[in-house]
Amino acid sequence: MSKSSSSTRLGDLAWSKSPKTSSSLFTLTYGVLVNHLCTSSSPSSEVSASLLKIGQNIGTRLIDDYISKTSLLNPSGPSPCSSFTSTAESIAKVGLKMFLGVTADVRVDSDVGYSLVLSQNPLADFVELPDERSDLKYSNVLAGCIKGCLESVGFEVEVEVVKDTVWGDECLEIKVEGKGRRRDELEGGFKDE
Amino acid sequence: MSKSSSSTRLGDLAWSKSPKTSSSLFTLTYGVLVNHLCTSSSPSSEVSASLLKIGQNIGTRLIDDYISKTSLLNPSGPSPCSSFTSTAESIAKVGLKMFLGVTADVRVDSDVGYSLVLSQNPLADFVELPDERSDLKYSNVLAGCIKGCLESVGFEVEVEVVKDTVWGDECLEIKVEGKGRRRDELEGGFKDE
Repeated sequence: MSKSSSSTRLGDLAWSKSPKTSSSLFTLTYGVLVNHLCTSSSPSSEVSASLLKIGQNIGTRLIDDYISKTSLLNPSGPSPCSSFTSTAESIAKVGLKMFLGVTADVRVDSDVGYSLVLSQNPLADFVELPDERSDLKYSNVLAGCIKGCLESVGFEVEVEVVKDTVWGDECLEIKVEGKGRRRDELEGGFKDE
Repeated sequence: MSKSSSSTRLGDLAWSKSPKTSSSLFTLTYGVLVNHLCTSSSPSSEVSASLLKIGQNIGTRLIDDYISKTSLLNPSGPSPCSSFTSTAESIAKVGLKMFLGVTADVRVDSDVGYSLVLSQNPLADFVELPDERSDLKYSNVLAGCIKGCLESVGFEVEVEVVKDTVWGDECLEIKVEGKGRRRDELEGGFKDE
């Protein structure tokens, strides 16, 4: 079985076992949160940074759930975080599926960078950015979650939303760029095996 | 088939057809929202009121989803909002199931009041209230959602969280009290048929 299809299977299995909430309740609640951050006179860049930070904090919680669930469901599988490149597949086919019920396509940009491309934005139902917030990185919480997860397993990364359906793009694209490996005990992990 | 079991079946069907998100992502995002409201020096009563208001706004969006989905799935069924008392069953077995994947028990307190009792609080994973916020109505967004939904179909109500697992109670209990019917065109609806 190819790595991709085994990841897809693991993602489906993890998703089937996750307790769930309706997406509309989640997206509306997230919308309220963004709206609250925007009620201040903070420029969009600051609100976007706050959303990234919020996502990072959430990501550091979700990674525990991710690791415990995938270890249980696939105990003999390779570590999903053994190398930087392998994290792309783990996020695209397992993590996003487990928490949002969607998957992404992976585009490898370089040895230390990849993009996750989602044909739909699971946060963007009901959303229309007003003109004065057209530059807001509305979906930055997802970039933050990915950053928080990857940092928790030792990867220093920059994660950025580069395309978004809320900006009129045809997809949501999140760019992940590796900056090194933080924890010595995970040595060698930054390079592909 | 009893009314209760047909509501349960409708709730299960609506839930199976709802797009979903993992509960942990939702509860963490809601936690961030509450935390943001608490960072101000506002007393807990004000934060609780904000959460009620936020829930009301969300409820006015969710009711459309509720009505369109239940009408489609059960076109020949009675209107779920034809009388005040019938709303209890519609919320407990259909609405809560459709949006949160849980159901509640109904306790009828009077002709114009009932309580919804949930053995678990779907918002309360990961939550521990600090001492200075021990009186916070953390789950008030649910009371607000119910209020928003019922008001959208013409019922004036007071909705209140009276027990909560985050306060150490063994369940989450939400009390709904009817105050009259707002829209003349729905006349007669407040009394049971």
